[in-house]
Amino acid sequence: MRIDNRKFDQLREIKITRDYLMHPYGSVLMEMGNTKVICTATIEDRVPHFLKGSNQGWITAEYSMIPGSTGVRKVRDSSRGRIDGRTQEIQRLIGRSLRSVVDMSKMGERTLWIDCDVIQADGGTRTASITGAFVAMVDAFYKLYQEEQIEVMPISNYLSAISVGIGNEGPILDLCYGEDHMALVDMNVVMTDDNRFVEIQGTGEEATFTREEFNLLLDLAEKGNKELIEKQKEVLGCIGQLIKKE
Amino acid sequence: MRIDNRKFDQLREIKITRDYLMHPYGSVLMEMGNTKVICTATIEDRVPHFLKGSNQGWITAEYSMIPGSTGVRKVRDSSRGRIDGRTQEIQRLIGRSLRSVVDMSKMGERTLWIDCDVIQADGGTRTASITGAFVAMVDAFYKLYQEEQIEVMPISNYLSAISVGIGNEGPILDLCYGEDHMALVDMNVVMTDDNRFVEIQGTGEEATFTREEFNLLLDLAEKGNKELIEKQKEVLGCIGQLIKKE
Amino acid sequence: MRIDNRKFDQLREIKITRDYLMHPYGSVLMEMGNTKVICTATIEDRVPHFLKGSNQGWITAEYSMIPGSTGVRKVRDSSRGRIDGRTQEIQRLIGRSLRSVVDMSKMGERTLWIDCDVIQADGGTRTASITGAFVAMVDAFYKLYQEEQIEVMPISNYLSAISVGIGNEGPILDLCYGEDHMALVDMNVVMTDDNRFVEIQGTGEEATFTREEFNLLLDLAEKGNKELIEKQKEVLGCIGQLIKKE
Amino acid sequence: MRIDNRKFDQLREIKITRDYLMHPYGSVLMEMGNTKVICTATIEDRVPHFLKGSNQGWITAEYSMIPGSTGVRKVRDSSRGRIDGRTQEIQRLIGRSLRSVVDMSKMGERTLWIDCDVIQADGGTRTASITGAFVAMVDAFYKLYQEEQIEVMPISNYLSAISVGIGNEGPILDLCYGEDHMALVDMNVVMTDDNRFVEIQGTGEEATFTREEFNLLLDLAEKGNKELIEKQKEVLGCIGQLIKKE
Amino acid sequence: MRIDNRKFDQLREIKITRDYLMHPYGSVLMEMGNTKVICTATIEDRVPHFLKGSNQGWITAEYSMIPGSTGVRKVRDSSRGRIDGRTQEIQRLIGRSLRSVVDMSKMGERTLWIDCDVIQADGGTRTASITGAFVAMVDAFYKLYQEEQIEVMPISNYLSAISVGIGNEGPILDLCYGEDHMALVDMNVVMTDDNRFVEIQGTGEEATFTREEFNLLLDLAEKGNKELIEKQKEVLGCIGQLIKKE
Amino acid sequence: MRIDNRKFDQLREIKITRDYLMHPYGSVLMEMGNTKVICTATIEDRVPHFLKGSNQGWITAEYSMIPGSTGVRKVRDSSRGRIDGRTQEIQRLIGRSLRSVVDMSKMGERTLWIDCDVIQADGGTRTASITGAFVAMVDAFYKLYQEEQIEVMPISNYLSAISVGIGNEGPILDLCYGEDHMALVDMNVVMTDDNRFVEIQGTGEEATFTREEFNLLLDLAEKGNKELIEKQKEVLGCIGQLIKKE
Repeated sequence: MRIDNRKFDQLREIKITRDYLMHPYGSVLMEMGNTKVICTATIEDRVPHFLKGSNQGWITAEYSMIPGSTGVRKVRDSSRGRIDGRTQEIQRLIGRSLRSVVDMSKMGERTLWIDCDVIQADGGTRTASITGAFVAMVDAFYKLYQEEQIEVMPISNYLSAISVGIGNEGPILDLCYGEDHMALVDMNVVMTDDNRFVEIQGTGEEATFTREEFNLLLDLAEKGNKELIEKQKEVLGCIGQLIKKE
Repeated sequence: MRIDNRKFDQLREIKITRDYLMHPYGSVLMEMGNTKVICTATIEDRVPHFLKGSNQGWITAEYSMIPGSTGVRKVRDSSRGRIDGRTQEIQRLIGRSLRSVVDMSKMGERTLWIDCDVIQADGGTRTASITGAFVAMVDAFYKLYQEEQIEVMPISNYLSAISVGIGNEGPILDLCYGEDHMALVDMNVVMTDDNRFVEIQGTGEEATFTREEFNLLLDLAEKGNKELIEKQKEVLGCIGQLIKKE
Repeated sequence: MRIDNRKFDQLREIKITRDYLMHPYGSVLMEMGNTKVICTATIEDRVPHFLKGSNQGWITAEYSMIPGSTGVRKVRDSSRGRIDGRTQEIQRLIGRSLRSVVDMSKMGERTLWIDCDVIQADGGTRTASITGAFVAMVDAFYKLYQEEQIEVMPISNYLSAISVGIGNEGPILDLCYGEDHMALVDMNVVMTDDNRFVEIQGTGEEATFTREEFNLLLDLAEKGNKELIEKQKEVLGCIGQLIKKE
Repeated sequence: MRIDNRKFDQLREIKITRDYLMHPYGSVLMEMGNTKVICTATIEDRVPHFLKGSNQGWITAEYSMIPGSTGVRKVRDSSRGRIDGRTQEIQRLIGRSLRSVVDMSKMGERTLWIDCDVIQADGGTRTASITGAFVAMVDAFYKLYQEEQIEVMPISNYLSAISVGIGNEGPILDLCYGEDHMALVDMNVVMTDDNRFVEIQGTGEEATFTREEFNLLLDLAEKGNKELIEKQKEVLGCIGQLIKKE
Repeated sequence: MRIDNRKFDQLREIKITRDYLMHPYGSVLMEMGNTKVICTATIEDRVPHFLKGSNQGWITAEYSMIPGSTGVRKVRDSSRGRIDGRTQEIQRLIGRSLRSVVDMSKMGERTLWIDCDVIQADGGTRTASITGAFVAMVDAFYKLYQEEQIEVMPISNYLSAISVGIGNEGPILDLCYGEDHMALVDMNVVMTDDNRFVEIQGTGEEATFTREEFNLLLDLAEKGNKELIEKQKEVLGCIGQLIKKE
Repeated sequence: MRIDNRKFDQLREIKITRDYLMHPYGSVLMEMGNTKVICTATIEDRVPHFLKGSNQGWITAEYSMIPGSTGVRKVRDSSRGRIDGRTQEIQRLIGRSLRSVVDMSKMGERTLWIDCDVIQADGGTRTASITGAFVAMVDAFYKLYQEEQIEVMPISNYLSAISVGIGNEGPILDLCYGEDHMALVDMNVVMTDDNRFVEIQGTGEEATFTREEFNLLLDLAEKGNKELIEKQKEVLGCIGQLIKKE
């Protein structure tokens, strides 16, 4: 039995609240059980140096946890004077994932800034960030589209992410913090709505795993992402119809 | 008439939600109109170097705005590699204010960390931070008290803060961002429930003001703080009775 | 009786030495008792990014203490790798104060750099910095005016600053370090020669104060600033006649 | 046909030179084709703060490229004042991988520092670093063992890493820089000599991939790692017999 | 003829003012012509990590220029976030030079901090710093000696420094800024009162020089240092008799 | 007798391997006994700000030691977040030395980046860096010359550097680490092939030295540099004939 009585292949309760903040183009409160992340999408009318004059846009992501989000107070990166390695890995992962479903040649010379600020952490913050950031991104592009600043929605696919792992009683889906802490193997899987993979990051946290175990984990991840994308479709409603396969 | 139709001496709608997050000893969502700040209070069982062995505690505060909280995306301090001057001023103000109503010799060799994370900004974020942080601090000390880690509640007074300023049509109370932006004079006033002042910071943003104007502003600030402290008393209920005058 | 036998409303001995250094446009050795600050004003022929093309100038200030200026050696900001919060507050205060009496649209697209380097500290370094920097600024603008780089002196008012506080025997003017250290309430007041306020920063250093006490402090501050401005007029002589009310 | 005429499942030429430097406990020049990495292992007689008194050791890794190692001169991290995200990811990966095959409770309260300094880069520097660092680590532990500072060799398995990817003509093994640059999917796989996985990091560099493609890539990675571990066994000779399965 | 009409082997006017500041153990205003440096010596009752328990002291130096000291405003190291290379070279030179004439085993486990703050620069600031710092150091040690914190004065020799160079008309002594700027060769020489060398740093600023030229420069440097030490003896008076040859 | 049985005026074995790496314009493995430095020269098609539009080039150098190069693991500058003083001194020395033999007006608006990465340190790393970097620089300029990007080779002289010092038995040439560590006086001398000096840096590491001793050291340095330049001529062969005296 899992800590919170879920079945091994059951997601926690998902809640996606759109338009959570008044200022950004897109803003979402993403909740997976007790994990809560504010995902915002803002537009800047310029691109990084290496894209100037290319008539192409860029998507970049930042991730942070507020100090009160964790069991032991999280020291701010700004107090330590540098961004820690884990944070860097996560924000690179979020940016790369979102870029995989966007045709950046159709968004003009703009940068879409994605910010994922974790206000409460209970495991799976990076995957919740990706799933929530996708919705915020859709809203931001839709606003640009309504303002006629872009001609088409540049998004080709739905995108979500989930964690899977091997606990004491075998493979489990969507680990909360207590489970993540005890897991022998921990894996994050980013997928699209046509069942393709964008990222697979599996690590035997100081342990190792077999190919068979690995395949079971992928099965679980496919199931979880399918359900998450259903949820995204539900909250986005008809805007979702502007997302089209290339 | 003010931007949002308030009277010149009228506060915005106040909402103080206690126990907003699951991990910290105290956590509050402080809302003043559209301004929303998460205020948390966490306990660390050690004190800064200069207090070791003194049998005394310490209170320190940090303040930050998430990037999506403002109209134009706020660049993270951690990306810039240093904390900007405004942020430093604000967090020093919050810490100093809270320390003025706490008897730190009665809290043991502990540090109370106050974190104010602005998730939506519409003017008055530093004063909302102080008012909300006070409530989070009461909750944290009350928890320590219930756990019998401290013998008495070390808080002597209620504490709140409000902004006042001079707009086009004269002195106004509790400026929203649009008003703050246009104000000739801008002042933040921190007060206790026995009508004493803790901090008065008045600045003629590249303008100047007379002593008469100044006195009108103080009158408004007294009125605003009185109402805020009423609100604090209401949400804290009977716990508030443990706050006592020295 | 005060530490140095002054009356409660008596300033320390003031000495303002103009043209103290050979290189800068304006340079002043400002002495208030044992507090000694070198204030310099230099001109740079460009403005910050946000003012480019605006046909307007800018004034910015930096403040520092040499390590030997204090009782316990002051660690350099450059060794610590960052500017501390107190220093940031002070340099922001100096810049804001000076800008309040200058019409920056009349100084061309130039930056006036004010540097206040404390070589000996005995309380009141920030207020001495403002009073001395004002004189260095007048000299720098006068040199620009003589060189016909600007058409009028862009300064509208004299400007000075003084500290006041509540000691054991009540309110006192111009606190030296020993007094500042013991004061219950500490306030810095920046004023112009027409008796208007530019900044009022009052803090009950972990104590609180009443409105009556506050009014007594303002009375003292008005008296002190009046005397400081007399001194500025004396050392500036006829150049001072080019300072005119708008 | 591949750029350098290799078959799709063929490794580049592997050369592992032990005792490459005179000072460190272990030092290896690892060459995979034109990619050359100096891997060193040094011992420090203390552990990070969180392990003090635990009677356990720690393994940590750093990775860097010398400026002349790449086609366009690589700017030093020290000049930029911070370690970039890619470097952080790589050094975390190296450390985590090595720790997975070491019983840190058998190495005393020591830190094993692994340094991987790339002197020439032609793709696959992170996987070459892991494969080479493993050999340097064995040598360092063997020296401690000979000095009777540890009682048993604390290593349970051989460990190597290889990159695989999908190029224009399908899946390929051990990508050189030119291939890596063009690959649609890029994956790094860390494995042990009993065919178990330690890390799988697959990313569809702004593309996506199917589960079938993924399985083909894993097949290639298994083949490559098997050959690399053969090579490690060859150069380590009889020392390798001290590596034993738990 | 030289810029300021001096003879080729003539020093500028030297002025050494002792007890220039009220707080430090030793403090000197060192003037060589228009070059003015405040040199202070303060005592800290602990030593760097590598000397703990060694019963030995340490001497360390820091050097800085205030922004108004130079023709073009000098940007503060603290604003740039790091100490520039030239500053580092100079402070290492000052520390090394002073340590060469002190028996650090006779000063207890203390650190002597030397601070050289240039308030006006006109060439030769590093050599003026050494010459002035020596006097401040003597005063600081003498104070410790009077307080009976040390048993003997730990200084074995007088120490001074001077710059020499090759200008258009040949070798010259004690270069002012204008001369330094034009010099082909620039050399700093640190010497003791028994005519021994402590440091010789000669650089053909993008030019080269012969051994004959080099010998002429050393002759000049010997003459200059002899005169500087005379001056030091004069201002130190009978305290100087406590400096003794080992 | 010296540690390694050399005569007092004997260099260690010198080996200069050209074209050591595949990417840079020039790359050398410089070996002096056990000291090994990779020296690379790369070209960047722009110059620092202060040279823009001047039709002149620039030469700049960076120096670093890999962690495994020294007896005790060298902490990376990037981990400490800043470049240490010794490193800064060395890279400034290398750059200045190379610039003294190059006519930068004949290299176009380009920057030549010299990187010296020490992979094994046994004393004399800075002088080995200069001697090796000179050869890498010749190769880089020759490549530019062959590509007809420059019209003449802009190098006027051969350049090398050597260390000398005073050990227990008197002056010695080319100190290895063990000797350097014990030396009373340590000097680095940079020279050209026409026997002129570029830099002389002599320091009595907390000791002092006489002019007679100094002259003996210069004699040794002249001998050592003569032999080093012979070696450079040998490895450069006929390319060396393009180096011409101005």
